[in-house]
Amino acid sequence: MSEKAFQDYYADHSSHCYGCGRLNDQGLKIKSFWDGENTICRFTPKSFHTAIPGYVYGGLIASVIDCHGTGSASAAAYRHQGRQMGTKPKLRFVTASLKVDYLKPTPIDTEMILRGTIVEIKERKVVVKVTLSAGDNVCARGEVVAVQVPEHWGLT
Amino acid sequence: MSEKAFQDYYADHSSHCYGCGRLNDQGLKIKSFWDGENTICRFTPKSFHTAIPGYVYGGLIASVIDCHGTGSASAAAYRHQGRQMGTKPKLRFVTASLKVDYLKPTPIDTEMILRGTIVEIKERKVVVKVTLSAGDNVCARGEVVAVQVPEHWGLT
Repeated sequence: MSEKAFQDYYADHSSHCYGCGRLNDQGLKIKSFWDGENTICRFTPKSFHTAIPGYVYGGLIASVIDCHGTGSASAAAYRHQGRQMGTKPKLRFVTASLKVDYLKPTPIDTEMILRGTIVEIKERKVVVKVTLSAGDNVCARGEVVAVQVPEHWGLT
Repeated sequence: MSEKAFQDYYADHSSHCYGCGRLNDQGLKIKSFWDGENTICRFTPKSFHTAIPGYVYGGLIASVIDCHGTGSASAAAYRHQGRQMGTKPKLRFVTASLKVDYLKPTPIDTEMILRGTIVEIKERKVVVKVTLSAGDNVCARGEVVAVQVPEHWGLT
């Protein structure tokens, strides 16, 4: 596992995302890392992230899958080009589509572990499958289709 | 448009959802209503719901589509049975799967309007398609597959 998270390589002016921006103090500030060929993110919900009492609401699950997916896409694109993350030209991705299957209720008092697998990588598109586990259970599965941010957005 | 939102019929002990629970003071408290044969929800993002500066992060969009979808499913199930919402036995739904296609960046300073269309209704399953618009643009499209909460969960 690398010491610096994928999100820590994002430029300051594009680090305000509620899900993954290190500069959004009201946000979730998720952190994603390589774990061999896969990516990993650990996140512990807050008590107010409730769905039904004792369990996490689906929107949080979608949010962390989404941001872990786009972070993983960026890291994978750099690796695919044989470059260190953060080198120029910078590679930043946004979500074109997100799919989440909710398999079991996700307990709110347990660390969630998200594991990402890169299943497709093209020049401007990366597809990431994500499993979300809590304890011994896989509680949700997701797929993020991420597309590279056009340079004229000025994010990189 | 009805005066009482779908979510206002949920039982107190199942009204703590971060997305739609009227009793979660840190949550989004979305409100959904009938609008003819469709359902509608209006939500104005907060400034910290940022993705990239000026636009809404995808997780919020997924969250409001999700909760508007399950609320719409509950309302549709009552209507399908010819019953007033809130009458017993209560009908409450959770999300089995969620799909969101992000079509355009969603501006953060504009009210989002979500419109739900019931596309399938079976005994314990309702499928809802949702469009999310801001101003003149459809910014996202979603589909929520909602399943009725088993009675032994004690939510209704």
